Parts: sequence; C-alpha cells; structure tokens
Amino acid sequence: MNAPETINQATRCASALRFLAADAVEQAKSGHPGAPLGMAEMAEVVWRRHLRHNPANPSWINRDRFVLSNGHASMLLYALLHLSGYDLSIEDLKQFRQLHSRTPGHPEFGLTPGVETTTGPLGQGLANAVGMALAEKLLAATFNTDGHTVIDHFTYVFVGDGCLMEGISHEVSSLAGTLKLGKLICLYDDNGISIDGDTRGWFGDNTAQRFTAYGWHVTTVDGHDAEAIDEAVRAAKLNDKPSLICCRTIIGKFAPTKAGGHDVHGAPLGTQEIAAMREALGWTAAPFEIPSDVAEAWDARPQGARYQEEWDMHFSDYRVALPDLAGELLRRCEGILPPGVVDGVIQLLSAPSSPLRQKIATRKASQLVLEQLVEALPEMLGGSADLSGSNLTNVKASKWVNHHGSGNYLSYGVREFGMAAVMNGVALHGGLIPYGGTFMAFSDYSRNAIRMGALMRQRVIHVLTHDSIGLGEDGPTHQPIEHTSSLRLIPNNHVWRPCDGVETAIAWLAAVQRDKGPSCLVLSRQALTPFERSAEQIEEVKYGGYVLRDAAVVDVVLIGTGSEVEIAIHAAQILAGQGIGARVVSMPCVELFLSQDADYREAVLPTAVPRVSVEAGVTWFWRGMVGEGGECVGIDSFGESGQADALYEHFALTSSTVADRAESLVRRQSGR
Amino acid sequence: MNAPETINQATRCASALRFLAADAVEQAKSGHPGAPLGMAEMAEVVWRRHLRHNPANPSWINRDRFVLSNGHASMLLYALLHLSGYDLSIEDLKQFRQLHSRTPGHPEFGLTPGVETTTGPLGQGLANAVGMALAEKLLAATFNTDGHTVIDHFTYVFVGDGCLMEGISHEVSSLAGTLKLGKLICLYDDNGISIDGDTRGWFGDNTAQRFTAYGWHVTTVDGHDAEAIDEAVRAAKLNDKPSLICCRTIIGKFAPTKAGGHDVHGAPLGTQEIAAMREALGWTAAPFEIPSDVAEAWDARPQGARYQEEWDMHFSDYRVALPDLAGELLRRCEGILPPGVVDGVIQLLSAPSSPLRQKIATRKASQLVLEQLVEALPEMLGGSADLSGSNLTNVKASKWVNHHGSGNYLSYGVREFGMAAVMNGVALHGGLIPYGGTFMAFSDYSRNAIRMGALMRQRVIHVLTHDSIGLGEDGPTHQPIEHTSSLRLIPNNHVWRPCDGVETAIAWLAAVQRDKGPSCLVLSRQALTPFERSAEQIEEVKYGGYVLRDAAVVDVVLIGTGSEVEIAIHAAQILAGQGIGARVVSMPCVELFLSQDADYREAVLPTAVPRVSVEAGVTWFWRGMVGEGGECVGIDSFGESGQADALYEHFALTSSTVADRAESLVRRQSGR
Repeated sequence: MNAPETINQATRCASALRFLAADAVEQAKSGHPGAPLGMAEMAEVVWRRHLRHNPANPSWINRDRFVLSNGHASMLLYALLHLSGYDLSIEDLKQFRQLHSRTPGHPEFGLTPGVETTTGPLGQGLANAVGMALAEKLLAATFNTDGHTVIDHFTYVFVGDGCLMEGISHEVSSLAGTLKLGKLICLYDDNGISIDGDTRGWFGDNTAQRFTAYGWHVTTVDGHDAEAIDEAVRAAKLNDKPSLICCRTIIGKFAPTKAGGHDVHGAPLGTQEIAAMREALGWTAAPFEIPSDVAEAWDARPQGARYQEEWDMHFSDYRVALPDLAGELLRRCEGILPPGVVDGVIQLLSAPSSPLRQKIATRKASQLVLEQLVEALPEMLGGSADLSGSNLTNVKASKWVNHHGSGNYLSYGVREFGMAAVMNGVALHGGLIPYGGTFMAFSDYSRNAIRMGALMRQRVIHVLTHDSIGLGEDGPTHQPIEHTSSLRLIPNNHVWRPCDGVETAIAWLAAVQRDKGPSCLVLSRQALTPFERSAEQIEEVKYGGYVLRDAAVVDVVLIGTGSEVEIAIHAAQILAGQGIGARVVSMPCVELFLSQDADYREAVLPTAVPRVSVEAGVTWFWRGMVGEGGECVGIDSFGESGQADALYEHFALTSSTVADRAESLVRRQSGR
Repeated sequence: MNAPETINQATRCASALRFLAADAVEQAKSGHPGAPLGMAEMAEVVWRRHLRHNPANPSWINRDRFVLSNGHASMLLYALLHLSGYDLSIEDLKQFRQLHSRTPGHPEFGLTPGVETTTGPLGQGLANAVGMALAEKLLAATFNTDGHTVIDHFTYVFVGDGCLMEGISHEVSSLAGTLKLGKLICLYDDNGISIDGDTRGWFGDNTAQRFTAYGWHVTTVDGHDAEAIDEAVRAAKLNDKPSLICCRTIIGKFAPTKAGGHDVHGAPLGTQEIAAMREALGWTAAPFEIPSDVAEAWDARPQGARYQEEWDMHFSDYRVALPDLAGELLRRCEGILPPGVVDGVIQLLSAPSSPLRQKIATRKASQLVLEQLVEALPEMLGGSADLSGSNLTNVKASKWVNHHGSGNYLSYGVREFGMAAVMNGVALHGGLIPYGGTFMAFSDYSRNAIRMGALMRQRVIHVLTHDSIGLGEDGPTHQPIEHTSSLRLIPNNHVWRPCDGVETAIAWLAAVQRDKGPSCLVLSRQALTPFERSAEQIEEVKYGGYVLRDAAVVDVVLIGTGSEVEIAIHAAQILAGQGIGARVVSMPCVELFLSQDADYREAVLPTAVPRVSVEAGVTWFWRGMVGEGGECVGIDSFGESGQADALYEHFALTSSTVADRAESLVRRQSGR
C-alpha cells in the first residue's frame, strides 16, 4: 500500500466517505456498508468535481439534482451531505438508523437537508431522476430566453444492480432515451453482487448494450479509477443523450477480507475488519473524526455560495428584463396557485347550462374541468400511460412533449409504474404539477409509487378511469373490484370517487390545491346522471361526504359513491313509496369525511340510524362505516365480461337490491 | 389484388382469422380488430405449421403452450381455437364479449378450452410464458431419462408494443435469457402503433438490440410474409437461447382505409370497411361462415390425435420401464399431494422439543416447515426476489436452478412482479407448486400478479417477510402499514399472518393444500413468543380465527394477528389484574374466519361482548370486525426508522395501550 503521505487528496476524500459509512454502520449495529465502500470514488468525483449545488440553500431551484437510487447506501449520502457542508452534523451521523434521527435507514425527503427524494424501493430513484431531468427540460424551455438562462442543471443518479433488474428501470430508461433527456447522468455501481450472491446466476444482461438500445450514451470505466470516472462524466455532460456510466466496482472495496462478497452488503463489517481497513488505507483518524485537510477539500460551501451568487445575479437581470416570467417562475417554484383558478372552475360548474350538469361520464367531466385548469395553471404537466383518448387527460391546450420536445402533456407509453414514479420526480423537482392517467385496474402496477408520493407528501394527481364493472366488456382483468378501497388504505392518500360532473370538478380543485400529498381521481367510463345541489351542498362536497337527498323522517341512511349514488337515489324513491324515509349521503372522499369533526359526521350519519352502503367494489371496507348491523351492497368476487347494464343486474347492484336490503334492515332494527 | 382462385391456402387461412375477428367485433359492437388483423400471418404460421397440440385434449401435459400476451386481441385466439377444432363453436364466437359467454373481452383461463392463461394486463402473459418454459425445462430435467422423453414442448407467446414497454417484460426477458430458456419462442407484433398513436414518440427502443443484450436469439422479419415467419420459427426451435422474432406488421392489415392507424385498435371497423376488406381479399363467405376448404386446412384434430397417440405410446413404454417416475408425473400433473405430508409437518410441530415451539421469527419457523415440505413435496419450486437469506425461503434440500440449470429453487433476481407472474405461469403449466419470497412492502410491486393468480385460481404461495414496523431500522419505505389489509381485499386471495411457529406450520399446510387460489404468508423479521395450545386449538387454527386464551367471564375480546398476539396476551394479563376478563382471539387468516358458519363465529366473537383489535397496520380494516363501538389499536401513518422495540413504543403498540383501550371500552359499554 501507499504510505499515507503519498496518497492524494481525492483518495483521502474517498477514504473519508468509506470510514464515515463503515463506522456509522458499526455504531448502529445495522446497515449497508458494502455499497458506500464500493461507490466512494464515484461519489468523490460527482460531488467534488461536478455537482453544482449550494449546501447553504438546499432548495435553490437551479441546483444540480443528485439521487441515490440504491437507497440502502444511505450512509454514503449522509457522509456526502455532512462533508459538503449541509446542515447535517457529525452527531446526526452518529445517530444513524435511530428513531427520530435525521439519518434514517434509507434517505427520506423532507427529513434531511439535501436529500432530494426518498429511496429504498429499488428502481424508483432512477424514475424520480428521470422526472427531475424531464422537469428541468420543460422548465428550461418555458423560462429560458435568448440571453437569459435561469434553468440549466444536471440530474445525477447512482443505481445498483437491483435498480437495473427492476422493471421500472426499463420503463423510465426507455422513456428517457426516447425523450433525449441529455442532462440525465446515471452512474451504475456494477459490482456483480446482489443479496443472493454473484449476479451472473440471475442477471446476465449486457447492460451497456441494453442502454444503447434505449438511445443512451454509454461508457464503461473502472469504478475505482477517479480520473476515468471524471472523464466519463465530462463526456456525459457534453452529450445530448442521457448517459449511463457503467462503473465496474468491487462491493466493499478496501474491506480487506470481505470486499467482493455478498456478506459485506447488509451487515456491519466488524471492528477488526474496519481496523484492518484503516491500516490498509493509512487512515489514522478516529471514527467520526475528519482530518482538517480532508474537511477542507470536501467543503462545498464556498463554491456553493459562488454558484448561488452568480445565479442570483443572472436572475436579477432576468427579473428586470422579464418581470412576468420571473414572477411566474418564483410562484411556480413556491407551489402557490395563481388567483382565480378556483373561481374559474366554480363558474364553469355553476352556469345553468354548464356541460358539467349534463349526463356525462366522470372521465368526460374531468376533461371538461381540465380544459379550464390547464389553461389557468401553466404548471400542469398532464399525461397518460398510452390511454389519452380513454382517460381523457388531454385537452385543447395540451401540447405533447413527445412531438415537440417541450409542452405540457406527455404520453408516457404503456408504463404505469414508471409514469407514477416519474411524476413523483417532477413534483419533487418543483415548478410543475403532474397528473397522469391510466385504467384504474392498473393502479396495481403503479401502487408503490403512489405510496411513495404519499410518504413524500407530493402533489401528484392520479387520474384512474374505468373504475368499476361499469366499463363492461373488457372483463375482470380490467374491472377494479378492490382497488378503490385498497388505495384508501395508503396513508396520506386522498381517493376521490365523484358521482357526477359537479363532484368531479370539486375533486379536481381539491387535488390541485392539496400540496401535502397525492390524490387519486377515480372516474367512470360510463355516463352518470347529474344531481341538483344547493349552494350549501356544493360547499359541503369538499368535506368528503354530505347529505345529497334527505327525507322528512330519516329511517335509514344510504351511503353511495361514484356511479352508485344514482342507485342509492332510486332506492330512496322506492323506499319512499314504502313509507320508509331514506337519506342519501354521497361520500366522494372517505378520508376527508373521516377527518371532519364528530359533530359534522354525526349530522351526516346519525348514530341511531341504520346505514346501507353501495359501491361497486369490495364491501369489507364499508363494514366499518355501516357498523355490524348495517348492510353493504357491493361486489366481493371478480367481475365479468359483458355489457355494463347486464353486469349491474348480474351482480345485483341495483336500486331494488338496495331498497330491499334497506327495508329489511329497518324492519329488523325497529323490531328490536 | 389477386383473384380468389390464385390466393393460396395459407392466405385463405389467415383471411378466415381476419374475418372471424372483424365480424365478431362488429357483432359485439366493441373489441379490438386491429391486432388480430395484424397478427393473422403470425398466427397462421405458428398454429398451422408448428404448434403441437391436441384440440380434443387441452390438458395434455406435453402440448406446446401458446400465450397471447396482448390479450385484447382475444378474437384472434378464439378464432384459432374454433378453427383448430377446440370445443368452441361458431355460436360461442357470435357471443363475443357478452355476459356468460365463453368468449369474453380478454382470454380467461378456465373458461375457454385451450386458453392457457388469462391475459389483458400487459406484459404478464410474457411472464406467464417464461414460467411455462421454466416449468417445462425443470420437469424435463426431472422426468426425462436416457431413452425416454416425456416432457418436451415449446412455449409460444405473442406480444405487442404495450407488453414490451411494460417493465415486467424487462424482468422476465432478462431472467429467461440468463436461464437460457431455449424453448421459449416470442413473436413480437411490431406494428409501431399504440393507443396514443405512432409509438416513436414514446418508445424509441431498438428492441432487437435490447433482447440481444438479454442473451436472446433475435430475428426480424416481415410479419405479413408467412414463409419468412416460418423460417424464423424453424430457426428459433433449433436455437438454445430464447428467441424473439420481431415481426414488422401493419395494424389492421387489409382494412382498406384504416390499416396502419390507431383508430383500428379498439373499435369495430364498421360494415363498410369490412365489406371493402372482403372485396379486397376476395372473401365471399358470409360472416361466421367458413369455406369448407379453409375449415379443413385449419382442422388440427387429426394431427392432434396423432401427436397424442404417439405420446401416449411413449408414455406407456415409460410407465412400464419407470413406473415410479410415471406415477409421480401423473400425480404432480393432477395436483394431488402425496400422502403423509400433512402428518410430517404435524409431527414436526407436535414434538415437545419442536423447534417450532421456540421463540423464533415466523420467517424462521417458515424455513423450518419448508425443510420438511421441500423434502416431502418434490413439486415445490422455491425462490426469492434476491432475498433468500432474509426471506429464509431456501432450505437444505434447495438446489439452485441458477447454478445447476435444473433444481427446485430459483433466485429470481430483484424482480418481484416478474417473480409473481412467472410463478403464475409455472402453476398454470402444472407439475410444480411455486413459492417465492420478497419483503412484504414490495408486494406492492407484484400486486397485480397476485391478483391474476387469484382470478385464475392458481396454487401460488407468496412468502412475504418483514411484515411490520418490527423490521426496524430500514424505515418507512420497507415497513408495511396498509399491505396486509390491502392484500386481504383481493378476491380469492388468502392472507395468513401467523403469530408463532405452530400457526406458521398450519398456514403453510393450508397454502400447499389450497388448489383454488394463491396464499400470502405474512411473516415477521423479529422473534415471536410461542404459545401453548390444546390439540383442539391446533385443529381450530385452520378456521382462520380461534380462542387462544379465554377468561372465566368474558368482558372483552382482544383480537390479534401475528406479532401483536403477544401484545394482546399481555394486555389480557393486565386486564385480569383489574378484574376484567379478556379473551384473546388469534386470527391468522381473516378470510377463512369470515367463511366459517355463523355459530362458529359467534362462539369465538360473541355479539354482545365488546372487541378490541390489535395489528401493526392500518386500523380501518378492523373497524368492520370490532364494530362501531369497538376499539382498533394499530398504525394509520407511515413507519419510522429505528429499533423495533423503540418503534412499538413510539407507535403506542403496547400491551398497556391495548389494556387501557379495552378497560375504557368495557367501562363505557357497561355504563350504557
């Protein structure tokens, strides 16, 4: 080995990363040392030589983005943030993986300054990075002008074997290649080891060839040769295709006995191994101590301040020359909606002749609302997973990025999961509000990305059409049964299932105004009957559940959502003929209804009155709402292929079923 | 155009497919004519010239398999089945997409003879085909001997652009290439059109290069040149790699004005267009009429009978020479378990010193059970999505297919969705019972394949470990919150969450014995305390819920699952000290409990007694079980990174919380 005095600065900087990672995992008695050790040179090169960021201002809009898609290597990122000068102390690092620390097991957005996205579920970080690079490209096209460049940054992402085995890596890399996202630079930690061992037994891809097939610029380097990596990154920055740099690395590099094996992946190295690594690398500093020359070499604050200052000066000029654009950029980056949007939609839906008050499918109502919203909100970035004409997500003002290279609408291709995770990346970048459509049944494909958006509290809108057996002939593979309910179970996710045009409009308004999490809009394929409402009722829709039709004496409450509200209304009419007073409650957003105060909930659903739910999906979810004594009308088996009307009859999802069940319920309860 | 008399037989056979598809879509007034028209030559070549099958016996074990992954082209498959001579009449075809017909919108396994798998959710058919080819390879290695070849067939699959955009296509194609599944032959309908239009805007891949990177044999042909396709299939059959034949096609080929555009994808052609197509192709037969020469040319029954006869003769010899192997093959194909399996496991768990009665993680208990089951059931094909050492799915008797080319265990790589859909294909093939592990949180990735297994009623076992915040430091991305409940919502899916070794063993027995659908085994990372049970209680576990500890007077019932049963037991002890009698019900499988008769359910959960649930996940699911008056102890937010014990405290998932909530509940109810 080299003597300490001949080891150069870059090597010592990489060593600092290695020891912070190894020592923190050791202290935590759990974690993943192998990947940080293997990626130390990659990290040193990107962070010290290329990344344009300002540790003092992690929300600077024009910073380069960095994503650690193999999030289990979190200690690498924490070490980088600490050494670069972010507000993350050495004490924070000592608390790695402890409750309430800022250094949790996987990087969490919103918790740790400088962490751009939450990663851990493999492949999604790469998708987020594609979203960030996409957002950069679109914002640059909107806000840069001749002589003024205010948005111009790279997105770097580290990925491991696991990310590249995941299907989502295909979806988003294919998309990124097609869209020529040239400022996306991906470094692949190609160490040939995954948890089950040598990857050759299950991952025989020629990855370089695969990404060439996607239209990427691909290079392969020794991942422990910093100069070679540096050169590859320089070339990547000049290339107008997205770049993949395959870095051949050794997992756990420099762990004397464990490097190259899979034992180094997910368990502490042990004090002996670390001591031997110190010896081998000539590293004399104690755990969590950084030699001053290394600290200085890593400190990115002075350079960060210069980057920021330079940009601030540019932006001052821009603001003078183009005050409207500058103000718009700031507004959009802050996520504040322009005034008048809500008013515009309210006007649309209030007009007596409003098309929202016709008998139309809620997916069509959604499109009518979008016609307004997309005009009023230039930050809306729409799209669909190749179902634009079915989801009705495109509008007159939609300009397809696919065809123009810029715009406000994207066909994501048949890539539901990729779309959802790219939308998370777009939202995380800032400046855009993404919405994207697919068939509701295929929310299964994108489910974990919907969850990640909820965990990261991102404003992402999922347009899920064809929401029940009402889609008809396409049959059980396409008919959601459990989906509406199971999406409701994801924490911090709002699921809207509107019953007509007016509720659809209010759902859209709630979704675009909600800046603390995703919303799912669950929409019908088939036309639904519109209902008249008082101004007060329209106001109440946003509470998630409200009385749509009341009875003089309320013997029973019928609770419906979406296409089944109409069934409940007809059932109430039947019951009225039998002398039974039935109130109809429309509950487009259960989560919001449950978050209302007890008085409101009691006013809508009086404890003493029996309840019947009706929704074309699994009933168990509603059991909690109607209570043990109540009745649930729904479907607990898979759907069938056939015409929609025939299916509603076949599954006994009819007003007469609801009326019968309600009548016998009232009789039972009054008999007690 | 050629005059009718010069058009050769193959062309007329392809025309028959085109007109059956176009006319049936027309009659149904909905469906997808474009893909059948575009794939008619591909289908003619594969079905008339290569497919070894016997329409009279669709369950012949050694038939070639055919999967239509782009399932919306279902009419192509129905036309093929009808023309080949399967039990699918012309009247069935006239009922296309009607309720109760055998020709639903997408092909459905179990409904239509000759349909090998249910397709529609794109990409999964390809994954099923990979599973079938894998099963063939493994069964061949087991059952063929020198001089006796009883398993030897190809698996053909048609895929469209949509399938190849989906991430799952990457996962399973990479796996198939690595495993060298040489008898898998994939024909790609490369028509350059998807629903949003010309795919070049969102799908720029060089697909041939991509599959070459996976280690596939790739050829490209004119998809309307039958002879070229035929030659490519011949070459594919001789190649020891999986083969992709890229067939350049025109969507809606021969629809005079609509061919090549996306309008032909998902709507009837219209009578005028079909009439013009008749004219152009010189097709004079009326809708649903097949000229006798064409019918004869298509009829696969005589050749099928010969194939079957030949194989039957081989098998007779085999049965004489190797009666044990022959008997075993028949047993496995019929899906009947060998005698003694249940006894073996019962013995294991009954022994006083049984390791199942120690304090161990349920994932570890699962491994102990698997040690027995894998020995006793040679049809078990285990695996993990690169987490073998964490899921503990591998056992001593596991022989890794990755390293040996045959065996009973497979590391699927980091491909959760691919694994689940491949397992569906393995189960559909017959002869093997697949089980596969991943972290529970990533059941989100595989969710739609779990659903498809439930829809197809397949015996597939999903081993989902690290089932709650109890996994600790890996944090919220890895901690299931809503997953157990949301998996329970999938129709025909059984979710087991055992509380100790004994329940784990019984869950495994139920899962391997269940031949009408998938089971999910939800297992802990952390060690759980074992409970003593009477023989009667052990018997009752299989009812899904039973009284684990009773009180002399039952004031409250505490219902727990998995790791939280221990908390309930301790809470009952606390309550006993307060003079409150608490019964503890363990409910490892809610679906089974709910399927018991009312008397049993009442005996376990008396209506009059208030209830408290405790499960480390979303509470709403339990609201239906405890009723409005009951209490639910759980977690309705995302998890945190930290040590497991600290997390249970942090989320107030403790026996004192349960006792407090139970005590105030009892007080409230008795005060009424």
